[in-house]
Amino acid sequence: MEKIVTIHLDRGLDTPLYTQLFWQLRSLIKEGVFQPDEKLPPIRMLASELGVNSITVVNAYKQLEKEGLAYSKVGSGTYISPVNRDERSTFAYEEADDLRMMERGQISVKGDTINFASATPTPDLFPVENFKTLVNRVLDRDKGDVFGYQQIQGFQPLRQSICMYLEKYSITSSVDSIQVISGAQQGIDIVSKALIEFGDCIFIESPTYRGAIEAFKSRGARIVEIPIEEDGINLGELEQKISLYNPKLVYVMPNFQNPTGYSYSDEKKQRILQIARAHNTYIVEDDFLSELSYTGSTSLPLKALDHSENVIYIKSFSKIFMPGLRLGFMVVPGRLWNRVLSAKHTSDISTSGLIQRTFDLYLREDVWVEHIEYMKEKYRKRYELFMGALRDSFPGEVNYKDPGGGLHVWFQLPQGYSDEEVYARCLKKGVLITPGSLFYSGSSGRSHFRMSFASVHSDRIVKGVKMVGSVLEEYLKEGAAAGSQTEGYSPFM
Amino acid sequence: MEKIVTIHLDRGLDTPLYTQLFWQLRSLIKEGVFQPDEKLPPIRMLASELGVNSITVVNAYKQLEKEGLAYSKVGSGTYISPVNRDERSTFAYEEADDLRMMERGQISVKGDTINFASATPTPDLFPVENFKTLVNRVLDRDKGDVFGYQQIQGFQPLRQSICMYLEKYSITSSVDSIQVISGAQQGIDIVSKALIEFGDCIFIESPTYRGAIEAFKSRGARIVEIPIEEDGINLGELEQKISLYNPKLVYVMPNFQNPTGYSYSDEKKQRILQIARAHNTYIVEDDFLSELSYTGSTSLPLKALDHSENVIYIKSFSKIFMPGLRLGFMVVPGRLWNRVLSAKHTSDISTSGLIQRTFDLYLREDVWVEHIEYMKEKYRKRYELFMGALRDSFPGEVNYKDPGGGLHVWFQLPQGYSDEEVYARCLKKGVLITPGSLFYSGSSGRSHFRMSFASVHSDRIVKGVKMVGSVLEEYLKEGAAAGSQTEGYSPFM
Repeated sequence: MEKIVTIHLDRGLDTPLYTQLFWQLRSLIKEGVFQPDEKLPPIRMLASELGVNSITVVNAYKQLEKEGLAYSKVGSGTYISPVNRDERSTFAYEEADDLRMMERGQISVKGDTINFASATPTPDLFPVENFKTLVNRVLDRDKGDVFGYQQIQGFQPLRQSICMYLEKYSITSSVDSIQVISGAQQGIDIVSKALIEFGDCIFIESPTYRGAIEAFKSRGARIVEIPIEEDGINLGELEQKISLYNPKLVYVMPNFQNPTGYSYSDEKKQRILQIARAHNTYIVEDDFLSELSYTGSTSLPLKALDHSENVIYIKSFSKIFMPGLRLGFMVVPGRLWNRVLSAKHTSDISTSGLIQRTFDLYLREDVWVEHIEYMKEKYRKRYELFMGALRDSFPGEVNYKDPGGGLHVWFQLPQGYSDEEVYARCLKKGVLITPGSLFYSGSSGRSHFRMSFASVHSDRIVKGVKMVGSVLEEYLKEGAAAGSQTEGYSPFM
Repeated sequence: MEKIVTIHLDRGLDTPLYTQLFWQLRSLIKEGVFQPDEKLPPIRMLASELGVNSITVVNAYKQLEKEGLAYSKVGSGTYISPVNRDERSTFAYEEADDLRMMERGQISVKGDTINFASATPTPDLFPVENFKTLVNRVLDRDKGDVFGYQQIQGFQPLRQSICMYLEKYSITSSVDSIQVISGAQQGIDIVSKALIEFGDCIFIESPTYRGAIEAFKSRGARIVEIPIEEDGINLGELEQKISLYNPKLVYVMPNFQNPTGYSYSDEKKQRILQIARAHNTYIVEDDFLSELSYTGSTSLPLKALDHSENVIYIKSFSKIFMPGLRLGFMVVPGRLWNRVLSAKHTSDISTSGLIQRTFDLYLREDVWVEHIEYMKEKYRKRYELFMGALRDSFPGEVNYKDPGGGLHVWFQLPQGYSDEEVYARCLKKGVLITPGSLFYSGSSGRSHFRMSFASVHSDRIVKGVKMVGSVLEEYLKEGAAAGSQTEGYSPFM
């Protein structure tokens, strides 16, 4: 090999060696260590250097090809794909981190693909005419003030509307405690800036939203994963580790969590608040979509129960309903106001005045509540179709919990089966799902996957679920056959 | 004293002891170490603990009072000011960092104050009707697509328009190299995320824009200040230190720098590029306002001369012309595309689709160029009035350079005179200027101040400059009198 690259394969891990090799090569390609059209090391040479079987390298190279990162020339070897200029913006996502794109359903899909990876509604559901009316009213009313510098903390009337809106969810707040943000991701970034110093420890649910993991890592945080269970975070483990690590914050999604769809029981909600209070740590509540309960029961945010100002509440207005809007807010405990304001200023000074002022009217005149009800009805129908199709066509060995709300269902494969394999096989059939490993900070969790029903039109949901069901059937059958020969071993490595 | 607070006064510094004490107390108040209405330590007690004269403490407390951070009760002592609820949003700025607010001219001013601190134009100058027409066209044309997730890198047609726009400034770019951002501050934040690891060294011009210093510090960077001279950064010092410190980046504003208004000579522009190339370091060019030349000569951005992809170019569309818009872009060297894209994603996913699409039409149909020409004409008139008034009414001992463009003039007081004193005296007369110490990372530079002519209407410019002139006359006279008794010593300590 001409260049010195460092690859570590660890036989102690659950992850197959070929997958480990694939991910590391993928990183090296993304970091630009390999150039377009550069030849990858010959298979036997690399295998011998790494002390692995040639088939391991073959499989890793194949995976690179499958992802479009490499191509092979017969009789010559495997080469790094050139950047196709016409597809640059798509490719850029791949390069930057297609994992995060996929998690958000931003990965580009070919025309006919049934997209269970995306959690974004189709554009026909957005309330364009409403919005237009309100934008024009704002411009006529406020004129040039729309374009001057805005208050860092946010447009004051919008903060008032937010306080009123929060009362619906039993959250008591004041205009002083609201910080307007350009979407939930910025909220996470700002909390990170305000609280995390290099080397600090923070806790996350495992699995969780990858955009949060990235933001915490970007601040140099050490990340401790606490498993989430069907009724919420594992409190035993949380309590045990919280004294040990003294985390700056615990990042949670208590209702319809992403990716699992799990919700905290009322008891766990109370207990985690007690723990935070006792240990004087912050809970960052990313209220992903408490509103989207389909069972009629209401799911209170943690913030509604927080009487000791331990919860930093982050809410996006845009995430599911109008993602391109880039607007959200935080409810900030008093002792953090200054730090949060300062972090917002360092991030982008303030959020667009036009968007803030328009959205203020949305909230103030209850157009927003109507819109949520409308979307909820759409989603509920898709949810019911989806759950019905699951019951009809998924093999019994694949476990999942009915979330009762939200947008996602989380599936567990039997021991030894790989999410990436399911992902690849589904993609071949024209169905996109999200491999579960994307939602872990470490390398665990390869036996889960996530499906979202938000952006698939009703008439294709049953078809799509059936296709995934048959992929699973087939995969499990092969595995069983292989398993009968090689006990406890992954059937594809 | 009931609480343990740490105060270090250093007699080796140029800064008077009372000023050092003032700033440290101010920080402690801002950090919440002292509570509203809490009594400050008695003067003699604190003086004796610190080993200083009582008058030092008296002066520091007076300064706190002057800033509204403390109040005194006759015969009782000095107390921390309560937070006035009605003024919270203003006070929050104070708490967070009124320095940065002031630098942007975001500090709140009473009705009649003549504001030479702000660089923001008055709202009547914003092109509201144009904007409204274009927003409506976008909503009619793109409908729901406006509200779906946008490309992280930015709306592709906008990136095309930006490339065409950049040709006017001799910058060659491609849609691939453009990253859309929510204003220049976000650009600086994203570059920091993409390039700076904890402990890295970065270089800045000294003095410079404080929002950049904060962003770099927030990443744990060590900051090295390189003095800026009337024809650009001190290249000798840059070259000498660059090998020593191996900085990740050098942050510069080559045309009409903030706060000095200085511009790099053509030779210095070429030389700094050579140095960056030779040392393989990045230059982050914050193109504050190259467009605003009033002398007819054009000021090329550094990026126009960068043939080796060492320059990361940051440009705000909003900074001066429509600050509330929150829109800008970067031109990114190819090897940083992925890192920048990833940092943008971690920051706020993408910039508002509505703003991007509307601004695309602005650029595409040359409405933007017209708007700039219009604003430039307005600013040029204010500039000429301002420079004329300076010549008429400023004492000769106060030095400044005619910037020939931009929005700021930078003044140097004679040795021993303090910017904070000038600031306080001007404020008493109802004129706001910006103390120069705000623009330094360390504690140097207390003998400069900045004045901006952007947001003062023409009819008040001469009056305001005259008032500052007479404040300076008086201050210098007192200083001369004091100086005749205590040689080389600051007249007010």
